[in-house]
Amino acid sequence: MDGFLRITSRDNALIKLVCALQTSAKERKRNNLFVVEGLRILKDLAENGVEFDKFIVSDTAAKRYEKDIKSFAENSQNNYILPDSLFEKIADTNSPQGILALAKIPENNLEIDENGKYIALENLSDPSNLGAISRTAEALGVSGILISNDSCDPYSPKVLRASMGTLLRMPVFIVNDLVVFIKSSSLRSYACVVDSDALPINEADFTGGSVILIGNEANGLSDEMKTAADKKVTIKMRGNAESLNAAAAAAIAIWEMVK
Amino acid sequence: MDGFLRITSRDNALIKLVCALQTSAKERKRNNLFVVEGLRILKDLAENGVEFDKFIVSDTAAKRYEKDIKSFAENSQNNYILPDSLFEKIADTNSPQGILALAKIPENNLEIDENGKYIALENLSDPSNLGAISRTAEALGVSGILISNDSCDPYSPKVLRASMGTLLRMPVFIVNDLVVFIKSSSLRSYACVVDSDALPINEADFTGGSVILIGNEANGLSDEMKTAADKKVTIKMRGNAESLNAAAAAAIAIWEMVK
Repeated sequence: MDGFLRITSRDNALIKLVCALQTSAKERKRNNLFVVEGLRILKDLAENGVEFDKFIVSDTAAKRYEKDIKSFAENSQNNYILPDSLFEKIADTNSPQGILALAKIPENNLEIDENGKYIALENLSDPSNLGAISRTAEALGVSGILISNDSCDPYSPKVLRASMGTLLRMPVFIVNDLVVFIKSSSLRSYACVVDSDALPINEADFTGGSVILIGNEANGLSDEMKTAADKKVTIKMRGNAESLNAAAAAAIAIWEMVK
Repeated sequence: MDGFLRITSRDNALIKLVCALQTSAKERKRNNLFVVEGLRILKDLAENGVEFDKFIVSDTAAKRYEKDIKSFAENSQNNYILPDSLFEKIADTNSPQGILALAKIPENNLEIDENGKYIALENLSDPSNLGAISRTAEALGVSGILISNDSCDPYSPKVLRASMGTLLRMPVFIVNDLVVFIKSSSLRSYACVVDSDALPINEADFTGGSVILIGNEANGLSDEMKTAADKKVTIKMRGNAESLNAAAAAAIAIWEMVK
C-alpha cells in the first residue's frame, strides 16, 4: 500500500518494540509510548486529536477497513503493513482486528481544577477495576483521575481495554507520592474506609473542590493516607462487607460526590 | 482413602456428568445440579448448611487439605478421589485446587418479602456483571435477586466465581416471565433507564417494598418492562453515558434504594 512500509520478519526492531510495549510497563515508560488496538479505540483517539506515532495494519484489515485505514494513516507519523500471521504475533488479543497504533503517553502535568471533583486511587492493583472505575468516573463527569505510581499502569493493554478508551479521553495523572499530594492540595480529601465510626458518605459535604480516595483491593488505604485525608467516609453496609469490591465502592462514592 | 471411591477413567459416567455440568446450563437444569470448585466456596457452602450431592478430590488435594477434606466428605452423599491429571480434565480453572462438589440447585420458590428491597435483572448477559451485581447486593443488604430466565445462568461456573459465592448465600429467584411478575407484584418497581425525562433516582421514594429493574447491557430494559414498572428512574450523567456499565449502574441504584 502507498506510503506503508511492509514488514515481514519477526526480528524487525518495530515488531520487537510493539511486543515489549504490550507486556512491560517499564518499556512503555522508557519509550514514552503505549499500544492501542482495534478500530473503535483508534477512531476514538483520532477524534480526540491524538496523533499516532506509528500505525500498523494487517493485510486483511487493510482491505476490510480501507476508508478508516486511510484516515488513520493520515493521522500517523509512520505507517506499516504486516502479513496477518505476523500481526497476530504483536496483537494482545486472540482474534485481532488487524489494526494497531503506538501513541505517545500524554504529558503528566498535574493541572488540578481547584473546584473540580476528583478520584484518587492508591495502590489499586486490578486492571479491570481501574478500567471500570475510569468508565464510571467519565460517565458521572469526574474532573480527573489521580493514580498512585504503585497502582497498575493505566497504559497497559488490559486496563485500556477494560476502560473502553475512557482513560485516554479524560485527565489522568500518575502521582509519585499521593500522600504528599493530598496533604498539599487545596482539594478537600475524603478517605473511603470500612469503619463504622467514619462519617456515612451520604452525610458528607462535597461542595467545592473534592477528591475521593480509594485504596488497594485487599488492604484498603494506607494508614498514612487515612491520616493525610481531611475526612474519613464510609459506605454503610448491612451485609457482607467483603462483598463490596473496589469498582462498586468507587461507583457509589463518585455518585455521592457528584450527584 | 476411606469411604472414597477411586475413579481413573475419563469414560466414567461421573466424569462425563461433571464436564457436562461445567459447560451447559441445560444439563445443569436437567440434572438439577451445579458445580462448585475450590476450598473457600465449598467451606462457605458447608457453613451455610448446603449439603453436597457428590464431593470430588484430587490425590494431591486429599493430602494437602486433609482436615477440610474430612469435613467436606461428611457433608456429602458420595465421595470420590481422582488422579491429579483426571481432576484437571473436569476442573473449570487452569490451576485447580483439586476440590470440587456437585450440589443441588436450590428450590426456586418465589417467596417475596412485601417490605423487602429487591433487584431484578432482565436479560443480563455478562457473567461478570451478574457476579458483580450479586456481590454489591449482598454487601448492601438487598433482600434477594430476581433473574429473568433469558439472563445468564446464575449457577454457571463463571458467574459463581465472579459472585464469590454470594449467589449461593442470598435468595435468588429465576423468573419465567419477569414482566408478568412485576405487574402482579405488590413491590413498587423502578425501571432504571437512560432518559433525561425520567425521575432522578436520588429523588425517588424507596420506602416500603421495592424492586429495581436493570436491563440488558447493550439494549437496556425491554419496552414491556418499562411500561410494566411503576416508575422510571435515571442516574443523571454529565459525561459519556455509554461508559456507565450495568454493574456500576446497579451499584448506584441499589445504594439509592437501601441507604
